[in-house]
Amino acid sequence: MNTATKVITVDRDVLSDRKQRAAELRRTFAQRGTLVVNLVSSPGAGKTSLLEATAKHWNGARSMAVLVGDLATERDAERLRPFVPVQQLTTGGACHLELSLVEKGLALLPDDDFEFLFIENIGNLVCPASHDLAEHLRVAVLSTTEGDDKPGKYPKMFRTSDALVISKTDLLPHVPFSVAAAVKDARLIQPCLQAFEVCALTGDGVDAWCGYLEAFRSERLQTFAETEATQ
Amino acid sequence: MNTATKVITVDRDVLSDRKQRAAELRRTFAQRGTLVVNLVSSPGAGKTSLLEATAKHWNGARSMAVLVGDLATERDAERLRPFVPVQQLTTGGACHLELSLVEKGLALLPDDDFEFLFIENIGNLVCPASHDLAEHLRVAVLSTTEGDDKPGKYPKMFRTSDALVISKTDLLPHVPFSVAAAVKDARLIQPCLQAFEVCALTGDGVDAWCGYLEAFRSERLQTFAETEATQ
Repeated sequence: MNTATKVITVDRDVLSDRKQRAAELRRTFAQRGTLVVNLVSSPGAGKTSLLEATAKHWNGARSMAVLVGDLATERDAERLRPFVPVQQLTTGGACHLELSLVEKGLALLPDDDFEFLFIENIGNLVCPASHDLAEHLRVAVLSTTEGDDKPGKYPKMFRTSDALVISKTDLLPHVPFSVAAAVKDARLIQPCLQAFEVCALTGDGVDAWCGYLEAFRSERLQTFAETEATQ
Repeated sequence: MNTATKVITVDRDVLSDRKQRAAELRRTFAQRGTLVVNLVSSPGAGKTSLLEATAKHWNGARSMAVLVGDLATERDAERLRPFVPVQQLTTGGACHLELSLVEKGLALLPDDDFEFLFIENIGNLVCPASHDLAEHLRVAVLSTTEGDDKPGKYPKMFRTSDALVISKTDLLPHVPFSVAAAVKDARLIQPCLQAFEVCALTGDGVDAWCGYLEAFRSERLQTFAETEATQ
């Protein structure tokens, strides 16, 4: 057994520093007119497909960029690159994105003048819930194949989200999943959660989802621009 | 900013203690004839359904018990209780199971004389990969709806697993998923990975999966019983 004594000196409140940096960035983005959306979900829930469908729907009428997080590989960035400016963030094994990695990715995007910046988080319904990436909107994606019991089982993720996208709705005839039950379960935790049903493959529901993002940006983004960064 | 200085004294190698405890327990289970299986996957990949199907297949011919982990709720234990002895482990928000919680759960099971003990981990393809729960077998469950690109994107989970169960094979006609591509991707990381295709709803493939567990127990468990716990 190792009985060495180690002294660790903590001379800054790191968490407080991070919170303040996130608040500052959130305000900066808002002042620039960029709505930042943090997409969170289980692995394979369809975040990348949702972003593909979003890019195709806007087809250049709205400017967007994507920062896409993974433990390893550039696979998601390769999928999105034909449609939008994208930068892969690779954590090398870490289970969530941190703001410092997001900032590094931002510096590698071709410019900083987008109406929408999407951050596709690591596929993980637990750890990303605890990390503020300076987003204005956190959106949880739940696929119909995961089961409608997930919100209650992973409560923090749904409690800290603003919207819920139920994805892969084309599979509803083949899986034991009730949209009403999932939304009800999620709203027990977060009563104000906005819910959308989307099938990225067929495009069903993409119009309502994009409309929500556009309306949020035009009606609510300004309030973030006027918020004190230290709040 | 908080500038307090905190002194943290580390006078034991906690990780080494945990490793040794896991090795001791692994040997104890083997000497008792209990094969311990740690089931890991994304949320909603079908771990609980696989255990239901396993219990129904054996129908009492093999004795089994389940420790089932979740952040919150008793939902999975309630699903399994009609079929097998089960104890819910609730982490209260933590993203993986730890051995200490498993030990608490074990003490609450009706007895300790099972041929198979399944530990259903938290739905998370990242963090549980780093925690030894004294298992003899780690089995990753990957559903056909998650995409066949997941092994490369979550490499540690597949590298540290002994077997791969591809679940929800009844949905293969409806989803863009190649079993061959997923297995190939996983074996780039872990060449010895045993692969099974299972549909828990229809029972397809459950026979081969249960046969694998039975064979592993009868042919390989003894080697764990003879292993020095400190190795």
